[in-house]
Amino acid sequence: MDEQKENHSVEEKQEELEERVENELISALNRKDKEAVLKLVEDSHPIDLAYALEEASDSDIVFLATILPDQQMAEIIEQADDELQVRIMKLFDLNKIIRIFQHMSKDDIVDILGDMPANRRKELVKLMKSSDQEVIRNLLGYGESTAGGIMTTEYISMRSSLTVSQALEKVKEIAPKTEEINILYVLNEKKQLVGTVSLRELLVAKNYDTLQDIMEDNVISVEPEADQEDVARLVSKYDLHAIPVVNKRKGMLGIITVDDIIDVIEEENTEDMLKMGGVSKEEDVDSTVLESVKLRLPWLLINLVTAFLASSVVSLFEDTISQVVALAAAMPIVAGMGGNAGTQTLAVVVRGIALGDIKLHGNGLRILRGITVGFINGLVNGIIAGAVIVWMNHNLALGLIILVAMICNLMIAALVGFLVPVVLKAMNYDPAVASSIFITTFTDVCGFFIFLGLAKMFLPYLLQ
Amino acid sequence: MDEQKENHSVEEKQEELEERVENELISALNRKDKEAVLKLVEDSHPIDLAYALEEASDSDIVFLATILPDQQMAEIIEQADDELQVRIMKLFDLNKIIRIFQHMSKDDIVDILGDMPANRRKELVKLMKSSDQEVIRNLLGYGESTAGGIMTTEYISMRSSLTVSQALEKVKEIAPKTEEINILYVLNEKKQLVGTVSLRELLVAKNYDTLQDIMEDNVISVEPEADQEDVARLVSKYDLHAIPVVNKRKGMLGIITVDDIIDVIEEENTEDMLKMGGVSKEEDVDSTVLESVKLRLPWLLINLVTAFLASSVVSLFEDTISQVVALAAAMPIVAGMGGNAGTQTLAVVVRGIALGDIKLHGNGLRILRGITVGFINGLVNGIIAGAVIVWMNHNLALGLIILVAMICNLMIAALVGFLVPVVLKAMNYDPAVASSIFITTFTDVCGFFIFLGLAKMFLPYLLQ
Repeated sequence: MDEQKENHSVEEKQEELEERVENELISALNRKDKEAVLKLVEDSHPIDLAYALEEASDSDIVFLATILPDQQMAEIIEQADDELQVRIMKLFDLNKIIRIFQHMSKDDIVDILGDMPANRRKELVKLMKSSDQEVIRNLLGYGESTAGGIMTTEYISMRSSLTVSQALEKVKEIAPKTEEINILYVLNEKKQLVGTVSLRELLVAKNYDTLQDIMEDNVISVEPEADQEDVARLVSKYDLHAIPVVNKRKGMLGIITVDDIIDVIEEENTEDMLKMGGVSKEEDVDSTVLESVKLRLPWLLINLVTAFLASSVVSLFEDTISQVVALAAAMPIVAGMGGNAGTQTLAVVVRGIALGDIKLHGNGLRILRGITVGFINGLVNGIIAGAVIVWMNHNLALGLIILVAMICNLMIAALVGFLVPVVLKAMNYDPAVASSIFITTFTDVCGFFIFLGLAKMFLPYLLQ
Repeated sequence: MDEQKENHSVEEKQEELEERVENELISALNRKDKEAVLKLVEDSHPIDLAYALEEASDSDIVFLATILPDQQMAEIIEQADDELQVRIMKLFDLNKIIRIFQHMSKDDIVDILGDMPANRRKELVKLMKSSDQEVIRNLLGYGESTAGGIMTTEYISMRSSLTVSQALEKVKEIAPKTEEINILYVLNEKKQLVGTVSLRELLVAKNYDTLQDIMEDNVISVEPEADQEDVARLVSKYDLHAIPVVNKRKGMLGIITVDDIIDVIEEENTEDMLKMGGVSKEEDVDSTVLESVKLRLPWLLINLVTAFLASSVVSLFEDTISQVVALAAAMPIVAGMGGNAGTQTLAVVVRGIALGDIKLHGNGLRILRGITVGFINGLVNGIIAGAVIVWMNHNLALGLIILVAMICNLMIAALVGFLVPVVLKAMNYDPAVASSIFITTFTDVCGFFIFLGLAKMFLPYLLQ
């Protein structure tokens, strides 16, 4: 820790730390310096080691695995990103993997298995203890982005008839083996989840009280099929540290902890931002050229089609343009401003949907308000644009046309900027996906059509 | 809880729940039905009550405050959004507010005070206990989006010389009064933070061990001036449930809990998405027309200037366009595709910066890779666009020009899409802010210039 250095931001210090761990680890691995490696692992957080390992060669990783205890190796692998996990797992034989799995939580094991070829996955599951086999097979059955897919089966549950002192005794027994012990899940005789007791409440309660007496019985839970984004919203709304996952009969299946929820929130936010920008969520700054092309080209091709749509509107008015060539220079202004105004509305609405502020009905007033905003912004920008055009071209009619077209296009932008994401959402599509392409197409087509259409109607005035 | 209904998504159930609480609360308050209100408050989560209260009249809120115990009123106010908090606080006299504050955590009190007029704030602070006055004044001194601004002073700290049994005794004493007791902060004789002990470790340890013996001494902490976004990244990276805030001499000032960190992450993500779309972060779906206009108009005006810039490039080539009017229809294709490709790169890069994946140096390879992606996407889209143009206009030269212009513009888009946010970041500006306006301006100007410039150069071939 070098927290005490002055004038260094958290960010810079983190960057320094990550670089130092990386340099020291890679160099110690290269020198095959066992002592140095063990010391560094002891002093560093697993996630910084996982980051550093991204730069290590395969043989370095194998060397590390031979000198590190399985538990520490497991901790590092748990923190690695998917890509590195896949790479590391390819280097180990099945027995080594099983030994490492023994030190991992079930949700992490399932994540890793999910990224493996099916036959290797099956072989691995067969090598596990039979009790684990069942748990793992169940977990593998849930969709990757559902509550079941991100839950862990490590939690503490107790019968509601237990007294506080019995429960405390049991907690002390279980604590060394279980990470999440701040909340006890209380089950009735049918093994249904009926309440929760926090460790704090347990410590405060009287020894002879039963869990039934002191438990909070208004438990917020989800079913395993629930979408992870909805689960994240629940955890965020109710400030939970963990949320239980139960089946339809309220049988306890697992819990999702808040650190996994933070990952979900970051993942969903990344997805929204990338989709708004017309990129698939799988891309990051270190994607290869081929990956990037594969992920971006489809959107660009769709865009090309829509660009030709806008272009064909312009073609309709080639006669008019050939008579007043100044139209060619002015027309992108109306279209472009429409696109930007639409994107503004879109950003607010997509975010509103993500935060749960926008529902599917009762939006009439919001749309009306948005169109009014479009009118005012269109008026202001239209007057300025019109004035500049009149001053440059000495043509009053052209200025008036740009004013009217700007107002119309910004009102249309407000309308489609709201409707497109809400309609996508209503149809159970992701509201962020490609919304901006639909909207800019719409505002381009409308912008060109209104502007050039008006120009054609009032051509005599333009030619004066 | 209606978790057991089938075929209902988490989202729908939440919507139903919120609506039900709202309807019941408003109707009970209207009827002045004390019994019904108390029952509903008992059965509902404070945040659902806070949501419902947004629809209540001022006199309803006053009625609620007279029948509810101050503690329950405090819980609801803590969960309300800023706007509602301001509204509620205006309805109460100073003494009532002080009584409610006694049931709130310090960070929430400071948030509420921060939204009050300065003189009312001063009067309130004067009415507090003198020990509280100092804490509150200190907290008010920190910037709103710094670690100090979001930390709370409710945490448990203990001397490192305490034994486990002494510590447990003390925890039991403090637990009823303190919310966050899962982690004990261990201080040395100089009151410096030297380690942490989780409640779990405390329960597992031997009674005669001292905290010094069992504590984790590699504590991740931040100083109060740290940016909340950086703090959130630390908590997310290291999977923390709380992070301590210390001064330069390692003196313990407070802690930030994970639920507040989730709020920070959501807030920062909203900010990024809105800024990318050219809207100030203060806007949400329920902003008034005037607010929206005020927040959006400045960006649209900047955009208008840049639109004229692009338009003036077109003006330079009016002669050429008047001879080959098909250029007017084709030119938005090149410009628009550049804008979209630039936005794709921008989304990936802004997100990469937000997640800490992109640092300020060592990006040469990424830029090169990006330009290569731009070349390939330009080639594919250029060939298709060119072929369509040739087929429509029977003009081979025009098709070739659009191919070359497309390739150039998409390579430029990749370059500026990467550089603009990184340079903004290096200059300590927010990389998301208005990046998309810079980039679309750049790609519009370049797109028009390259396309029309080539057309002018090869005009004889176009006229054949």
